[in-house]
Amino acid sequence: MTQTFGYAAQSASSPLAPFSFERRTPRHDDVAIDILYCGVCHTDIHQARNEWGVSLYPLVPGHEIVGKVSAVGDGVTRFRVGDRVGVGCLVDSCGHCHACTSDQEQYCVEEPTQTYASRDRIDGSVTLGGYSNSIVVKEHFVVRIPDALDLASAAPILCAGITTFSPLKRHGLRPGHRVGVLGMGGLGHMGIKYAKALGAEVTVFTRSSTKASEARKQGADNVVISSNESEMRAVQGHFDFLLDTIPVKHDLNPYLETLKFGGVHILVGLIEPITPPVHAANLVMKGRTLAGSLIGGIAETQDVLDFSAEHGITCDIETIDIKSINEAFERVVAGDVKYRLVIDMASLRNVSAS
Amino acid sequence: MTQTFGYAAQSASSPLAPFSFERRTPRHDDVAIDILYCGVCHTDIHQARNEWGVSLYPLVPGHEIVGKVSAVGDGVTRFRVGDRVGVGCLVDSCGHCHACTSDQEQYCVEEPTQTYASRDRIDGSVTLGGYSNSIVVKEHFVVRIPDALDLASAAPILCAGITTFSPLKRHGLRPGHRVGVLGMGGLGHMGIKYAKALGAEVTVFTRSSTKASEARKQGADNVVISSNESEMRAVQGHFDFLLDTIPVKHDLNPYLETLKFGGVHILVGLIEPITPPVHAANLVMKGRTLAGSLIGGIAETQDVLDFSAEHGITCDIETIDIKSINEAFERVVAGDVKYRLVIDMASLRNVSAS
Repeated sequence: MTQTFGYAAQSASSPLAPFSFERRTPRHDDVAIDILYCGVCHTDIHQARNEWGVSLYPLVPGHEIVGKVSAVGDGVTRFRVGDRVGVGCLVDSCGHCHACTSDQEQYCVEEPTQTYASRDRIDGSVTLGGYSNSIVVKEHFVVRIPDALDLASAAPILCAGITTFSPLKRHGLRPGHRVGVLGMGGLGHMGIKYAKALGAEVTVFTRSSTKASEARKQGADNVVISSNESEMRAVQGHFDFLLDTIPVKHDLNPYLETLKFGGVHILVGLIEPITPPVHAANLVMKGRTLAGSLIGGIAETQDVLDFSAEHGITCDIETIDIKSINEAFERVVAGDVKYRLVIDMASLRNVSAS
Repeated sequence: MTQTFGYAAQSASSPLAPFSFERRTPRHDDVAIDILYCGVCHTDIHQARNEWGVSLYPLVPGHEIVGKVSAVGDGVTRFRVGDRVGVGCLVDSCGHCHACTSDQEQYCVEEPTQTYASRDRIDGSVTLGGYSNSIVVKEHFVVRIPDALDLASAAPILCAGITTFSPLKRHGLRPGHRVGVLGMGGLGHMGIKYAKALGAEVTVFTRSSTKASEARKQGADNVVISSNESEMRAVQGHFDFLLDTIPVKHDLNPYLETLKFGGVHILVGLIEPITPPVHAANLVMKGRTLAGSLIGGIAETQDVLDFSAEHGITCDIETIDIKSINEAFERVVAGDVKYRLVIDMASLRNVSAS
């Protein structure tokens, strides 16, 4: 076992605070990683506060993990000590269901093991995430960070990046396609970059005209103010894909109408009942599709990292000190982030354990 | 012009009654058809009664038309007098939009011309449908009825058949896939036949156990009583596709849960707001898709006719006398039909014009 140090929530109502715990000695197929950076995802907040009712405490959040290999089990073949690696949202899955054997471990029929607040499949212990100085993860779930990528700004690719890249690829985005991006936070701004790099014409929908110039700076070809009826009417039947990263209730119908026949509206941020209801005619009468998508598989996660390196894509980040993590959570909730906060784990060194 | 005779509604509240009118002299690209049979689709009733608010009167319903060519325009190359032909829901479209040039005329950006209660693109006259003894239709929108198919029972393939066949093909149904069929009326029973012929394992969902033996007779491998929670639980994560032909409000969520990761729930019958609302987690967390589909394109309609001939598939029909059409409408509304009523147009001969 290895003594580890990080930040944990001890209950739904307690703030994150310093926390000492142990990581397992690497099993034969495990990779031990010294964590250098970890992104802050809104999911971390939902989980720390038990907003989905499934949290397990103490809870160490963090599933956008990058670092360097510190040790490997005797059966590990793909990684060596010193390699630059990443770990995303998953650390294990059944390995034999039709999802796992299709490289879509995130949809594992027996439920994948999440990077934190989940049960280890072998010893039953609660998984503890990346807001810490080390982690031990099964080799299959470790990906390589290409040398061309800056480690800190590559971290959010492991969740925000793969979440937007995977469905665009799966649903067949090709050069020349028209993509509308809904929401311009951590996910949305990555969606713009990937859609552009895949050759699409990219339009950002935003409610505020103040975000228009920022959208263009991120690479958007066009901006539509979604509250402006004439602007919305002007793009009716225009898009092949909508990448919808909005995590809160919103009316999909006006957006569906902007899709061509056969177009696909991809939901990656919404996990509540769809109200106001989708009018079935908006799907049936134009052969449109409403698709959901959850992060991506491990092979795809390596793909998106390699694609990002090739196209010079990283996340726009602000690195933070882990001591400011509770203030950081408030900023994420308030939407006061451009575009992702990433914890510099060196800041853990000056913290005393509780 | 040719004197024609059929049945029409003169207003939303009047029953269908004998009606004399004229068909245009064939244009250079027109095919004139002596109608032998015409299927009765629920849409005919919605339109005759102006239940969608878009009807134009007098309204001659009918878009499952089969007959024999009686004359052709001088530019017609694919048909000759005497050929067995059919006309479905469409009689024209713009011909140049991305839908038309993709053989998906039903999604024409400028709106296709419907077989009835629509405006002819050239002379602006109101189109009049197949409850009549002849029709004149642009060659492109006329399909060939293979010799192997019985004319009367082939008629509903032009709407009920193509509506179920098209989305199964488009979404990639392959042998060995598992398909669930919701609703076992005119569309549903055709869906069973096509899914089976395409090599799928087919399960019918029904609320009443009395329909179970009928479902098996239609070719279903399995039947699930949708009101039985344990039967529904037993098929969670089981299906690749759901073909949902239910035309009235129903909760999609329990059905979505029966789809595998990446599975597709295809709506072909619903054209109202989807309530109770779909829970987005049922799409996102398993990468599932909710797809709409409307009839099919003209090339696909020829494909489904050829496929039906090859596999010996026709619709289960009851032929009726056109004089009983108003009673027939009541039977369709009451669901008292196995599985499609088809008007034998020979019965028009004994009717006097009003």
